[in-house]
Amino acid sequence: MTGADANYWCRRALVDGAFGEQVRVRVVGGDVTEVSVGVPAEPDETVLGTVVPGFANAHSHAFHRTLRGRTHADGGDFWRWRRRMYDAATRLTPDGYRDLAEEVFTEMRDAGYTVVGEFHYIHHTPQGEPYPGHAMELALADAATSAGLRLVLLDTCYLRAGVGQPLGVEQLQFADADVHRWLERWHALRDTLAGSGRELVTVGAAIHSVRAVSPDDLAVIAEGLPDDVPLHAHVSEQPDEVTACLEAYGVTPVGLLSAHGLLSPRFSAVHATHLTDDDISLLGAAGATIVMCPTTEADLGDGIGPAPDLLAAGAHLAVGSDQHVVIDPWEEVGRLEFDQRLRLGRRGVFPPEVLWTAGTVGGHRSLGLAGDDGRSPGLQVGEPFDAVEVDTDTPRTRGADPWQLPLVARAADVTATIVGGRLTRPG
Amino acid sequence: MTGADANYWCRRALVDGAFGEQVRVRVVGGDVTEVSVGVPAEPDETVLGTVVPGFANAHSHAFHRTLRGRTHADGGDFWRWRRRMYDAATRLTPDGYRDLAEEVFTEMRDAGYTVVGEFHYIHHTPQGEPYPGHAMELALADAATSAGLRLVLLDTCYLRAGVGQPLGVEQLQFADADVHRWLERWHALRDTLAGSGRELVTVGAAIHSVRAVSPDDLAVIAEGLPDDVPLHAHVSEQPDEVTACLEAYGVTPVGLLSAHGLLSPRFSAVHATHLTDDDISLLGAAGATIVMCPTTEADLGDGIGPAPDLLAAGAHLAVGSDQHVVIDPWEEVGRLEFDQRLRLGRRGVFPPEVLWTAGTVGGHRSLGLAGDDGRSPGLQVGEPFDAVEVDTDTPRTRGADPWQLPLVARAADVTATIVGGRLTRPG
Repeated sequence: MTGADANYWCRRALVDGAFGEQVRVRVVGGDVTEVSVGVPAEPDETVLGTVVPGFANAHSHAFHRTLRGRTHADGGDFWRWRRRMYDAATRLTPDGYRDLAEEVFTEMRDAGYTVVGEFHYIHHTPQGEPYPGHAMELALADAATSAGLRLVLLDTCYLRAGVGQPLGVEQLQFADADVHRWLERWHALRDTLAGSGRELVTVGAAIHSVRAVSPDDLAVIAEGLPDDVPLHAHVSEQPDEVTACLEAYGVTPVGLLSAHGLLSPRFSAVHATHLTDDDISLLGAAGATIVMCPTTEADLGDGIGPAPDLLAAGAHLAVGSDQHVVIDPWEEVGRLEFDQRLRLGRRGVFPPEVLWTAGTVGGHRSLGLAGDDGRSPGLQVGEPFDAVEVDTDTPRTRGADPWQLPLVARAADVTATIVGGRLTRPG
Repeated sequence: MTGADANYWCRRALVDGAFGEQVRVRVVGGDVTEVSVGVPAEPDETVLGTVVPGFANAHSHAFHRTLRGRTHADGGDFWRWRRRMYDAATRLTPDGYRDLAEEVFTEMRDAGYTVVGEFHYIHHTPQGEPYPGHAMELALADAATSAGLRLVLLDTCYLRAGVGQPLGVEQLQFADADVHRWLERWHALRDTLAGSGRELVTVGAAIHSVRAVSPDDLAVIAEGLPDDVPLHAHVSEQPDEVTACLEAYGVTPVGLLSAHGLLSPRFSAVHATHLTDDDISLLGAAGATIVMCPTTEADLGDGIGPAPDLLAAGAHLAVGSDQHVVIDPWEEVGRLEFDQRLRLGRRGVFPPEVLWTAGTVGGHRSLGLAGDDGRSPGLQVGEPFDAVEVDTDTPRTRGADPWQLPLVARAADVTATIVGGRLTRPG
């Protein structure tokens, strides 16, 4: 019982895999306790229009927002962009990051995301000292609390620059002294946040990438991280990192993670753009989630990953806004489909229900917040009331089938977001 | 002298290739007569924020808007989508189309387009009779006039279903009896509109595609259409149409158009997705414009055309919203860059100035409204004052370099559109 008590009535809502009309939603302690379709509104109910489940932003680096609209002047590639991103990181302080993250999280909330998975690796000072009292992590937790956005803080293990490469001076703020120190800090962080009363915040974990930790470190993480904690990693975003892994270890990044027992339903591979057939089979067989970040993957020239093959193999899909060139779940989910059309030369690669599932259920699953694997998208009794009211009569959305809204709506069509039963309106 | 007299003052404006601060714009009869940078506002001036040149939507089929958000349920391909589009066409009447087009043109205007090239082929009744008095064309002209959007009506020659294939019953409303009757009707239409006082409307021409007319027809059009009229054609959108053309004539669609003398600076190839190296050379050497329609090409699974190669060969670029799955010039222009990043695996394929040029100068050139080929994007003395005020302090745009706005802004960030000196605000 962590959220609000409230009574809502929706003209239309997506409930357990079907759009229904005249939908009552009763909320106790932030959770849905009753969903009734086809009932009249009662005087004590807050009346809403079309309500859909809140989107999950399963991959975010909040501070990357500062680069939006500032890195396009002189060409370059992913790696040049990364140098700019490092410059931005060195300017962060806990107070500064709190304010910046609140702005970014508010943009997410107003766009229709109700939870963010923050892949967080700025946990040390630019000189490489841990911030006292988890100051950076609490700054992010406070930012999410102020913004009214659910947060899963994916504290990240980042120990080296690459295979056999020590950290560069600009990477000291990403790194614990070794993998054991990261695990210690991770447990202490979870204990600190669990007792802090920040009801919207939970803690997950991340391995930055197979560049950033050694195979031995992977084994320690597999052993030392509790089984029920969501674990994320950047995987095969750029061809160069796949090549480097093959050269060093004779296996792909997915193969390396698999060999160390890290692929499982609690694992999320972020991007997974450049995969072999074996990689796809391994991720599918493990029931892992793939967090696609379509707007980022376009911005950074990563390419278009094999999302339909991953789904067919048994993996789950989710989306993330990652570096925040765009913060718009509709555009992110829409691109999941449109990019595949460009890649495959045909329409309707994913049925609309699959897109809703990726944007909502899949992201919650990736962040350790989901119910059943196989459940349909929509409001459900027993889950938090995290939802979005979307205006279906704007110039963009007018006339669309509600199932097809992720292909036509945009952030500007969101008129309210509800997190744990609490409603906020944009602007 | 066809527009308004007005005095504006902009906090910032894109003027002849550079952003300036404190910009006075004097307008007489709709045209810019003075642009002064770095001057204080005077009491008789309407104060604006950040002002950029209006975008040109160089390819539109207004009625396709009715399909938005309604064709994604059951997969399929371009050709299946086309059958749905034909169904929508048969339901159009002049009165109905006037209302529909006004809504669509208003959406364009509010998104930041100031002119549309309407590729118009519904000029006959479903039974194949010409509408008396150019009723459909006047409906579109009236719709644009009411919406305050500049219109170049690209009346389209469409005579057969394919090589050796007569028109299907569902295509009768697209077709004149033969190419001569199309030319006659075209001249009569231009005379009618020229004398009608609809100041925002001009007439151009289009060949639907090399599917839809014979080589002999192409020769008649090259001979009979005045040299100064913009001429558009769908070119190589789908691999199948290239194959059919090669089988029938032994040349690609571009090769066929070239052989009949149709490639020139007044020619625009719409899509041009599936090109050979020779096609690229021919289009470039001719100084033709390529109208890319990125959101449509993604929606229909067309693929990503070789835009940088075309530009390097000497062709010009423009954008169009085509079937209107999206009406948003920022997103269309942004995708021109982002799609190339996905195709080529690197960032910064086009410098921002090239993107502005494609969205503004290139589109005007394609529609027969441009000044010099080589001119920079921005306001210019002697041209119509067609411009957009964009809010640079929204969650999306905050912090962006103004040059990079096409990569971050969206239609919802537009706060005013000015066409021929007349200002309207969305909503």
